[in-house]
Amino acid sequence: MRKLNAFNHVTLDGYFAGENGDMSWAHKGNDDAEYQAFVAGNASGESELLFGRVTYEMMAGYWPTPAASQQAPIVAEKMNSGRKVVFSKTLAEASWNNTKLVRGDLAEEVKKMKDEEGPDMVILGSGSIVAQLAAAGLIDNYQMVINPVALGKGRTLFEGLPQMLSLKLIKSRTFNNGKIFLSYEAIA
Amino acid sequence: MRKLNAFNHVTLDGYFAGENGDMSWAHKGNDDAEYQAFVAGNASGESELLFGRVTYEMMAGYWPTPAASQQAPIVAEKMNSGRKVVFSKTLAEASWNNTKLVRGDLAEEVKKMKDEEGPDMVILGSGSIVAQLAAAGLIDNYQMVINPVALGKGRTLFEGLPQMLSLKLIKSRTFNNGKIFLSYEAIA
Repeated sequence: MRKLNAFNHVTLDGYFAGENGDMSWAHKGNDDAEYQAFVAGNASGESELLFGRVTYEMMAGYWPTPAASQQAPIVAEKMNSGRKVVFSKTLAEASWNNTKLVRGDLAEEVKKMKDEEGPDMVILGSGSIVAQLAAAGLIDNYQMVINPVALGKGRTLFEGLPQMLSLKLIKSRTFNNGKIFLSYEAIA
Repeated sequence: MRKLNAFNHVTLDGYFAGENGDMSWAHKGNDDAEYQAFVAGNASGESELLFGRVTYEMMAGYWPTPAASQQAPIVAEKMNSGRKVVFSKTLAEASWNNTKLVRGDLAEEVKKMKDEEGPDMVILGSGSIVAQLAAAGLIDNYQMVINPVALGKGRTLFEGLPQMLSLKLIKSRTFNNGKIFLSYEAIA
């Protein structure tokens, strides 16, 4: 069975995107060599990326641009070429390269996908998807890079969670740029 | 000049209190011996505690109770006996032991207090106070214990922040119970 992970950059106050989807704060400190190696290592693995509609539209509007290739060339190449899935009942089509549009019931579709052959799956952003799949017990790992900023408002990963989610910390790593990588497992 | 710090238990999604002020998740894992020593060490220092009205009422309704003495005896004794200040224009009186009620302009009052002789000051919870004093550049250190839970909703520390706050990570410490202590300095 394939694993399903959620990976995100978040602020100290728990947002993965500011108002209007701003994520510029997540690129600060990207010139830290050790952190760069960590990011490149993450991008080197094979994985299928999962999105909700809002995050999909944000990412599809950013990663194919010249600005993205300049700010984060390795990640941009990976994002544009890799396998992607967007879950939406309203989107007419998914035109970003190598993206599959899935319209069915979220939890049912993800259960099927976990049983298929293929690389591990990673949800980026997509707060409402994370909250629903977390509640359904379908997410195996939660990985977060906590950035040394606070925004005061934005989108949270767990909005709409029907009950408290308890996790087990399995790894932490601090970088000189002030970012911290944390990895949690779901508690069965 | 006295330092002003903000110390908080927060969830992975950035809340210092759940709906209805629930903080029971913050007491989980308190049987970890190394973590207990850390908590006792924090409580052993002399400091003046600062609160907004909402957090004050929550704390004043909890720490003097037998449940608090049982769950966290050392902290409870410290909370009840220590010097405390509550900022409120609406509160009629502050009856919790050793508490001063301050009604004046928040930033002005805190500037005066920082110039006075005395122990360092620590804001607990009190999201709107933290956001206002952060925006005024009056908080020196932000200390957080990140708990391995997500709530989906609750009160955030930085609600109402007028602009992004960038911080510098100066310390991190991971405990076996899955909690992480992070300490940040304001960037001048």
